[in-house]
Amino acid sequence: MFSEQHRKAGVTYPQGFKAAGVKAGIKKSGNLDVAVIYTERQANVAGVFTQNAVAAAPVFASKKVVASGTAHAVTANAGCANACTGEQGTQDAARMQAVTAEALGCEPLDVIVASTGVIGVNLPMDKMEAGIKQAVEELSETGSETAGQAIVTTDTYSKSCATEVTIGGKEVRFGAIAKGSGMIQPNMATMLCFITTDAAISQPRLQQALSEVTEVSFNMISIDGDMSTNDMAVVLANGAAGNKEITEDDADFEVFKATLRELCQGLARRIAADGEGATKFLTVQVRGANSFADAKQIGMSVAKSPLVKTAFFGEDPNWGRVICAVGYAGVPMEPEKTVVKFGDIPVYKYGVGADYDEAALREVMGQHDIVIDIDMGTGSAEATVWTCDFSYEYVKINGEYHT
Amino acid sequence: MFSEQHRKAGVTYPQGFKAAGVKAGIKKSGNLDVAVIYTERQANVAGVFTQNAVAAAPVFASKKVVASGTAHAVTANAGCANACTGEQGTQDAARMQAVTAEALGCEPLDVIVASTGVIGVNLPMDKMEAGIKQAVEELSETGSETAGQAIVTTDTYSKSCATEVTIGGKEVRFGAIAKGSGMIQPNMATMLCFITTDAAISQPRLQQALSEVTEVSFNMISIDGDMSTNDMAVVLANGAAGNKEITEDDADFEVFKATLRELCQGLARRIAADGEGATKFLTVQVRGANSFADAKQIGMSVAKSPLVKTAFFGEDPNWGRVICAVGYAGVPMEPEKTVVKFGDIPVYKYGVGADYDEAALREVMGQHDIVIDIDMGTGSAEATVWTCDFSYEYVKINGEYHT
Repeated sequence: MFSEQHRKAGVTYPQGFKAAGVKAGIKKSGNLDVAVIYTERQANVAGVFTQNAVAAAPVFASKKVVASGTAHAVTANAGCANACTGEQGTQDAARMQAVTAEALGCEPLDVIVASTGVIGVNLPMDKMEAGIKQAVEELSETGSETAGQAIVTTDTYSKSCATEVTIGGKEVRFGAIAKGSGMIQPNMATMLCFITTDAAISQPRLQQALSEVTEVSFNMISIDGDMSTNDMAVVLANGAAGNKEITEDDADFEVFKATLRELCQGLARRIAADGEGATKFLTVQVRGANSFADAKQIGMSVAKSPLVKTAFFGEDPNWGRVICAVGYAGVPMEPEKTVVKFGDIPVYKYGVGADYDEAALREVMGQHDIVIDIDMGTGSAEATVWTCDFSYEYVKINGEYHT
Repeated sequence: MFSEQHRKAGVTYPQGFKAAGVKAGIKKSGNLDVAVIYTERQANVAGVFTQNAVAAAPVFASKKVVASGTAHAVTANAGCANACTGEQGTQDAARMQAVTAEALGCEPLDVIVASTGVIGVNLPMDKMEAGIKQAVEELSETGSETAGQAIVTTDTYSKSCATEVTIGGKEVRFGAIAKGSGMIQPNMATMLCFITTDAAISQPRLQQALSEVTEVSFNMISIDGDMSTNDMAVVLANGAAGNKEITEDDADFEVFKATLRELCQGLARRIAADGEGATKFLTVQVRGANSFADAKQIGMSVAKSPLVKTAFFGEDPNWGRVICAVGYAGVPMEPEKTVVKFGDIPVYKYGVGADYDEAALREVMGQHDIVIDIDMGTGSAEATVWTCDFSYEYVKINGEYHT
């Protein structure tokens, strides 16, 4: 699903979807910054949103669209988050919906809206309106790439993918574009993900699938422990594949969910790997825990530790910091039952440091992708968290990014 | 209490206390690394310890001393944490107590022991034994300065202070040495603090005072969100001042506790200000909250956000990141009642950005000490958290420090 062909196809891979990204002048860089995704055929819609109490105006607007159950379009911009913008922000988000709806010939409540970028600044609505109209004019079946580029901020590349699966004898397609980078944290941080599918699936099952999949994909990544005001993942299912509509928790639903999970986990890994300033991609794999919640809490404690993250940046096999972060995770643990490996090399075993081949360990630490494997030795539950290291570049990006 | 004279006097300011720090060869740098503090007159002892499940051997040994109620000495070293060292580590901590006791003529259970430094390495016990003996020989009433230097690791300066107060007509003195720097986090992270006083106070009151004061001092600082395996704060009270012993929760106890609080808050602020790589000292002052716990949780959420910390490093008045961290603190909030100020300049007010004088705000951001004032507008509880910014230097120190 990450082949060049699938990547290019993105959200326009499923039947009946068009997309476009345009330069509206909202980003200071002058790059692509307004995206529209459209399905003429009405789609069932599901969404998961930031849990930040200071949620942005478009989050509230899009929640109402999801509550209505159906949608025709997504309009998103980068460069300005429309967060902490009060009544003006609410009006601007509504105007994004109205302008899109008018251009497409649908209702405002059919339009998901999303914004990402600087907080506390009002959207330049003249530019936005012109951008939306232009994007609608340029909608095409090959427009996913420009749409994907229009939603990124400090990402070094746009994330998109697509895949297909057979459900009820019909080929069902999925596509997605996503952005991540800074402010990534469990429970949806400045992360936007728009997923399209031509599957026929009822709204309740669609929401169930997205909610369950989010728990083991987007909510398992952490870049820096911050949770943004604007995050959302939305899926539109327009039924064009012609499969018998999925309405029950049956075998078809399991196939749908498994495919969606694979898609979202792939995107989550790529978002973590492209964390701001990242030089390493770290997979924290916790096994032998008493519950998934415990395993996740331990994994997150390790993934969020700046001391662990800077050690990996320095390629220093400082397992003391890892076991220390396990110890303060707030989950009962028995050091004398715990084993920590970097790659496949045990570095901590049953309460003390393990004897290891220094040259072999150095080789593991020198790689770009490193697995931190933690076996708690007390149960059978597991969880995998993805993160990246903490570099000079992270400090530079975030000390200079502005406002 | 931070005058040059008081600072030099440190733990030997109260009557009957001696101290010394020596070079035992445990630190690679060859600097002072073993400290002994001693009171011939038996002292009541109280302590607070790391809550990390992977606590170091000396933590377990010292908890037993505190449980016994009295002590004569503290022996501490830097350069090696004696953590994750298994049975050998337990024996080494016991040996530190035994060697100190033999040299001083007291019992092993009279000796608090503490270690800080690299995790997972065994103490070089030959060097340690020689160091302890030498330190005991060098004990003096002016030895606090060398003792203070012997417990630091990446601290840029040793923290010590002293003060006096009148209790029951008698002058009662207090002194302290402390170390902090990396791995600092609420609930006692690689922080060591040894406090001496000549007050006469019962052990239960001494423990009560230390526990209460820790909640509003050491547990209110965060450098990077990590909690070490070795933290402890210990207070020895030898009664040499001759005041009527404090045994009740009365006026004398209040005076004692207030003085201890001022001492510990002063040290906590200095530990935060000297966080690894710090270029700014940040005071996060949360007011108008529904409870102290809420206010602390909000303050910590802001103080621990890498995005907030890098923004202050870059002198960027990015209030969006502050309000974002307030929003995900996990405490109910009403954005339309919240006001955020940097210094005395409102930057966020009732849900939206405030109009401010850019030049005046630039001046605030350029200062070394900056107050982030957050008024939640919903209650009357408050809490103050101290932290520092996140710099290139932090990444450098922690990417290169080794193991």
